[in-house]
Amino acid sequence: MTSTVITNIGELVTNDPAGPDLLGTVEGAALVVEGSRVAWTGPAAAAPAADEQVDAGGRAVVPGFVDSHSHLVFAGDRSAEFAARMAGESYAAGGIRTTVAATRAASDELLTSHVAGLVAEMRRQGTTTVEIKSGYGLTVHDEARSLAVAAQFTEETTYLGAHVVPDGTTPEEYVALVTGPMLDACAPHARWVDAFCETGAFDADQSRAVLTAGMAAGLRGRLHANQLGPGPGVALACELGLTAVDHCTFLTDTDVAALADSGTVATLLPGVEFSTRQPYPDARRLLDAGVRVALASDCNPGSCFTSSIPFCVALAVREMGMTPAEALHAVTVGGAAALGREDVGALTPGKRADLALLDAPSYVHLAYRPGVPLVAATWLAGRPI
Amino acid sequence: MTSTVITNIGELVTNDPAGPDLLGTVEGAALVVEGSRVAWTGPAAAAPAADEQVDAGGRAVVPGFVDSHSHLVFAGDRSAEFAARMAGESYAAGGIRTTVAATRAASDELLTSHVAGLVAEMRRQGTTTVEIKSGYGLTVHDEARSLAVAAQFTEETTYLGAHVVPDGTTPEEYVALVTGPMLDACAPHARWVDAFCETGAFDADQSRAVLTAGMAAGLRGRLHANQLGPGPGVALACELGLTAVDHCTFLTDTDVAALADSGTVATLLPGVEFSTRQPYPDARRLLDAGVRVALASDCNPGSCFTSSIPFCVALAVREMGMTPAEALHAVTVGGAAALGREDVGALTPGKRADLALLDAPSYVHLAYRPGVPLVAATWLAGRPI
Repeated sequence: MTSTVITNIGELVTNDPAGPDLLGTVEGAALVVEGSRVAWTGPAAAAPAADEQVDAGGRAVVPGFVDSHSHLVFAGDRSAEFAARMAGESYAAGGIRTTVAATRAASDELLTSHVAGLVAEMRRQGTTTVEIKSGYGLTVHDEARSLAVAAQFTEETTYLGAHVVPDGTTPEEYVALVTGPMLDACAPHARWVDAFCETGAFDADQSRAVLTAGMAAGLRGRLHANQLGPGPGVALACELGLTAVDHCTFLTDTDVAALADSGTVATLLPGVEFSTRQPYPDARRLLDAGVRVALASDCNPGSCFTSSIPFCVALAVREMGMTPAEALHAVTVGGAAALGREDVGALTPGKRADLALLDAPSYVHLAYRPGVPLVAATWLAGRPI
Repeated sequence: MTSTVITNIGELVTNDPAGPDLLGTVEGAALVVEGSRVAWTGPAAAAPAADEQVDAGGRAVVPGFVDSHSHLVFAGDRSAEFAARMAGESYAAGGIRTTVAATRAASDELLTSHVAGLVAEMRRQGTTTVEIKSGYGLTVHDEARSLAVAAQFTEETTYLGAHVVPDGTTPEEYVALVTGPMLDACAPHARWVDAFCETGAFDADQSRAVLTAGMAAGLRGRLHANQLGPGPGVALACELGLTAVDHCTFLTDTDVAALADSGTVATLLPGVEFSTRQPYPDARRLLDAGVRVALASDCNPGSCFTSSIPFCVALAVREMGMTPAEALHAVTVGGAAALGREDVGALTPGKRADLALLDAPSYVHLAYRPGVPLVAATWLAGRPI
């Protein structure tokens, strides 16, 4: 097994919980990779020998980002809808249904090529683990093939048949499909089950039915909730002990207490609020209440078409009351927790050697230099990609 | 002279004022370069033959960005000050004086290397013309050498001796220096003269003195004004007929009318408001009043360390009431106007062939996909870089 030492790291973020600060930061560090795993971290002067050596040139190294929420399997372009929304127009051209129609019409090859492009774009920006949902097929065939496409790129596939109720069916009929034949077709391709619990999508009872059916089929549960207004979704997620509940923009004090008590990760998606001109979720309130917080991209063609975790970090610091350290923690340790993963999100011995080498002396530059492509290299499972 | 045709351009932004829309957009286009200049644009099917052919793959091509306001000549790191500011702390570690001390202590080689890195970073993000100011030297020697460094990278060099009053001197003494020996030393390296007209920096009389002395020495005038609060700077800029006045965040109706009447370009710098959590300038108000608007980065280590014009476009659309088309116009035609340049900012025959090939089918994606590095290739004077 080949070993590599990365030396001359100006600042290494390990996320070691035994470290001196939230991020387990080491200045003047080295990191040794053996095979696909981290074998050693510490001061450069104390680094053991290795087969290969890479000089980081005094730059910062951080754990690869864990993006726990994306919708990459789709076709079509909705930039005109975005421009109309930004101009204050209510756009009547179909929204999500536009994407559903384009996705159904697309070949597997086109969908695969599109996901490959977006995943490559994410990798260039430091993301090393990405969750990918279905949800633009909304038929048994199209949901299953969406998940099969996603599974070519990640283990973290999520069955989101319950995204919206498609035209030509009733909510009751559709929930029966989602919890019956569609689940049967999708479960073999998915790790997670999800639903969009929101006015205009699925109510609490419908969401509960989807989640419990999915979990009975061996999937783990996560939920979209409380994005557009207060609602029952966060309470439901905590009651069911879901791993994560995503958006969490409109929360009551009861919701916040339930999140803190349940340990369910609150995943915040500030790119959505940026791209829809909505108020941002209050990360500070959640952190101060002891809630575990993740940040993710929600990359999708409608409400948020960023794939950039560094951009989400910058927004979290500017708009949501997070420190740069808290924001980086939320896109690494937080994202891993939101996916129930122990092997990623940190650079301590035994973890998968997923990392980003920054064109900067400190991780703070991810927020200090908004919009700048600062990721000089991304390593996945011990090798640069 | 070698000619090159770029074919299969999904969307070409020419900024041709005779075009069908603000941006002179052509769908399904081609562009012919001869030497360093644009020779022809139009529908791909009608393109003349050329020595070389490049396939844009259906992607969008836009004029290279003209960043008319940056402060790239400096040394030192102020990320800790940024983090403290975001945490709501008033940081007392010196602010701009920290950068002045580090810049004075840096060798010419270090400053040059640093500017080279930032200019390369800008180029990768589609910027093909950049203005660079002095202003972190504040001695005759250090201002002159800052400009000599800047002049290695751009013709658009700006003498900003009047950035702040350095320690150990009075405003009166310092203005005498800036308008006397420092001007004599700097004018040979500069195209522009600038001052920071703001409470705590230079008042209207002092700014006027600096500008009129600089203009008498053959420099053209521009001004920092009305950034932190209402003030006399915009009125002064219009009265003196300056090419541009920059920031323009706090404006009275009288200021707006003066800008519209004078033709002085109002350069907005939204990265500053993002990174200092201040209110954004109201671009909509200016555009509706007929003011010529530019957007620029203000890349500097204190108030705004972004080098990303696409990020500024996204902010202008999200926060300042600009359409994606208006924002792109402001970073191309607008930036060119703010530098008094006729040869850049557009892709019509005779213009310098500076362009950005986007990894996107439309320029709208610059705002629709915030934070994503969308520039696949940048061409400068007819060649990819």
